[in-house]
Amino acid sequence: MVSMEFTQVGSLTKELKDKEVLIRGRAHSIRAVGKKMAFLFVREGGFTVQCLASSETEGVTSEMVKFIAKLNRESVVDVIGIVSIPKNPIKGTTQEVEIQVRKLYCLNKAIPNLPINIEDAARSTTDLQAGQQFSRVNQDTRLDFRVLDLRTPANHGIFRIQSQVGIIFRQFLVSDDFVEIHTPKLLAGASVGGSAVFKLDYKGQPACLAQSPQLHKQMAICGDLKRVFEVGPVFRAEDSYTHRHLCEFTGLDVEMEIKKHYSELMDMVDRLFVTIFDSLNERCKKELEAVGKQYPFEPLKYKPSTLRLTFEEGVQMLKDAGVEVDPLGDLNTEAERKLGQLVLEKYDTEFYILHRYPLAVRPFYTMPCYDNPLYSNSFDVFIRGEEIISGAQRVHEPELLAERAKACGIDLKTISSYLDSFRYGVPLHGGFGAGLERVVMLFCGLGNIRKTSLFPRDPRRIVP
Amino acid sequence: MVSMEFTQVGSLTKELKDKEVLIRGRAHSIRAVGKKMAFLFVREGGFTVQCLASSETEGVTSEMVKFIAKLNRESVVDVIGIVSIPKNPIKGTTQEVEIQVRKLYCLNKAIPNLPINIEDAARSTTDLQAGQQFSRVNQDTRLDFRVLDLRTPANHGIFRIQSQVGIIFRQFLVSDDFVEIHTPKLLAGASVGGSAVFKLDYKGQPACLAQSPQLHKQMAICGDLKRVFEVGPVFRAEDSYTHRHLCEFTGLDVEMEIKKHYSELMDMVDRLFVTIFDSLNERCKKELEAVGKQYPFEPLKYKPSTLRLTFEEGVQMLKDAGVEVDPLGDLNTEAERKLGQLVLEKYDTEFYILHRYPLAVRPFYTMPCYDNPLYSNSFDVFIRGEEIISGAQRVHEPELLAERAKACGIDLKTISSYLDSFRYGVPLHGGFGAGLERVVMLFCGLGNIRKTSLFPRDPRRIVP
Repeated sequence: MVSMEFTQVGSLTKELKDKEVLIRGRAHSIRAVGKKMAFLFVREGGFTVQCLASSETEGVTSEMVKFIAKLNRESVVDVIGIVSIPKNPIKGTTQEVEIQVRKLYCLNKAIPNLPINIEDAARSTTDLQAGQQFSRVNQDTRLDFRVLDLRTPANHGIFRIQSQVGIIFRQFLVSDDFVEIHTPKLLAGASVGGSAVFKLDYKGQPACLAQSPQLHKQMAICGDLKRVFEVGPVFRAEDSYTHRHLCEFTGLDVEMEIKKHYSELMDMVDRLFVTIFDSLNERCKKELEAVGKQYPFEPLKYKPSTLRLTFEEGVQMLKDAGVEVDPLGDLNTEAERKLGQLVLEKYDTEFYILHRYPLAVRPFYTMPCYDNPLYSNSFDVFIRGEEIISGAQRVHEPELLAERAKACGIDLKTISSYLDSFRYGVPLHGGFGAGLERVVMLFCGLGNIRKTSLFPRDPRRIVP
Repeated sequence: MVSMEFTQVGSLTKELKDKEVLIRGRAHSIRAVGKKMAFLFVREGGFTVQCLASSETEGVTSEMVKFIAKLNRESVVDVIGIVSIPKNPIKGTTQEVEIQVRKLYCLNKAIPNLPINIEDAARSTTDLQAGQQFSRVNQDTRLDFRVLDLRTPANHGIFRIQSQVGIIFRQFLVSDDFVEIHTPKLLAGASVGGSAVFKLDYKGQPACLAQSPQLHKQMAICGDLKRVFEVGPVFRAEDSYTHRHLCEFTGLDVEMEIKKHYSELMDMVDRLFVTIFDSLNERCKKELEAVGKQYPFEPLKYKPSTLRLTFEEGVQMLKDAGVEVDPLGDLNTEAERKLGQLVLEKYDTEFYILHRYPLAVRPFYTMPCYDNPLYSNSFDVFIRGEEIISGAQRVHEPELLAERAKACGIDLKTISSYLDSFRYGVPLHGGFGAGLERVVMLFCGLGNIRKTSLFPRDPRRIVP
């Protein structure tokens, strides 16, 4: 056996007729026909093939047929057999050929009663809505037994897409002379900014987990790295139970020098994300199809050059549609969603930038507009009516920065090493951040961020 | 000013003679000659150019000359001027041309007395060893004022090399059909394994920070992702004050299905790291030169195909050299270093794999050797006599896994969701992990891991 090479289940085609092959996969389903015959579907990745063990075949004993008939689903098996082409097409496998089993080894035995049936977990929402005959696997059960849930084609698709988003993000930025950095997640004291933080003891000192790489990515700019990005975990101790909040997610963060205007940041968002969407549509066809098969969605509508509206224009659009919002406040989730609809109707895009936000609703380090300090050089970016990116030019004047921090109620002592960084000469700069899980969720219209986090963490969940 | 394009300092060449240019950079050094003339070196990235402001030039007032003469070092300035070619070569700048200043704006003022002088911080160790005339900047001062220290050419080189290691690591793996994953850093209870963990309160539950993505990367394999990798922070609450330990570092982690033998893992390490070294030598010539200029080092000696020795062979080599070590114990730092020397002498390589480690010194999830349970299907990898990678085939049988965990004194309750994952059918698998900062430190022979961490965390340091 050791000398044979493995053939992947997905490569089992009619060209291999009469060849002996060795495959490894899971016992996806098993069916005995009397005592002399057993059918076994072997699954590897998203592919399945039917294996037939018959005691009438030379070298196959009835004990072996019995052994196969009693295999537990999801056990890992090695099968050696001859590829044959069945007279009638096989129902329910991805491969057209059949394997006439000669030898079978069980490498790892699954328990008989699995908490999740993979076929149930892979059922499409369309099928589930159409009939009652299927058993449903709810979201919490999926997450409790995530290693089983992950085995569905949709989940393979989701996590391959997620992987690609990171790859494309980095490729684009590196080719544009960005440096990838790794900032510390352990910070002294309490982190700045509005969000709640996880606190811990660091060798006797009070510390917390970074709720954003914000300060350190800015400090990398102070260190003249010019253009930096980071892909790393972000921790939020918030009690948010929504479909789009997690206590731990993967931040996609960018910070760069600005030459003249904060629109340079929006140019970057535009080119970067259009590249991500284009590349996903091109590279991940199979994966997007696998996701769509279980969770049907429409491809994202976006333009080659991203639409930009000012906050004031957005407020006006809402007003014209009869929705009153505070012109100097923030948009709530409902207003954001409504604006997304209006933009889609008027501009035929589900991806756009809203900029020049009111200063009062942005963090202290956001640069006010030169012409009107009620507004700021900042922006949010939306996909399908939900916020996906937040960005801004930063205050690079230490006096103004300290003044803004004080105005926002921040104790200057807690951010002293950050403030000090600005006293050694700082170029104009700004940046933005997105959440990887949210990008994938919104691109695929998945509706729940837990679907795009491998092992999600929310206020109620810290296992597995 | 707004309509002019910026020219990078590094692009200022003789071809631009008589052209008007706009540059942005730092006031690297300033020298006044009487009241009518001031010389200013402007630095951008690793490049410097001399700017001359003379009140005899049209449009330049004596106030302006005075303003320039009083600029603080490291302030950020925009300079508009005419490119000229000086009669005598300029000493101390990277660019041969000079700029005849017409206008100068200070965009951000540095404080007059900087805690670190950039020229001192950039001084080569060779120069420092040769003479006493230079002021030294010690490691702690550098780290206390990291944003200034980062501005040296060597540090730009180090962090560009670090960025490339991550890029090459990912490119290689993705092209070999690996999926990039993001595992949670927040874990319930106390993490498994030997190292100390940072503990915290997670919404009323005891939790800790992951000291490795080990369990979750294995669980991704249980979920049939087949080949996964992760680049992310790793947290160790250990009181290690050595040159190569940090409390937070960037893990480069790989986990994959194994078909037949754990040597498949070593094949992967071999191809992956040889590709990393080859690519660094090819892509980062300038950066390696910049690092070597300040911290001289010999290029790493490695083979196109990585040397593999068994632990027993290593022990024998040490024995032959008169060093006695426990044949079933672990090698201490000194023995590792000595073995590195012996290997270099005998095989002319500073990069090699030592495998088939004694089982007793490996974590509970390490697969014992089939032919001799005193040894295990595991390996360590060394660069310049220091451990850089640890890897192994994992136990995939839940009963054996539980037995091994118990034998290692682990409370099975604390790893129940991990153990359960193995009851649903698990393929043979294994993996390895390296530390990004250590890879860069050892490749560049830097001698202290704090040099390759942007904002290092050790038992004494959590700021900036």
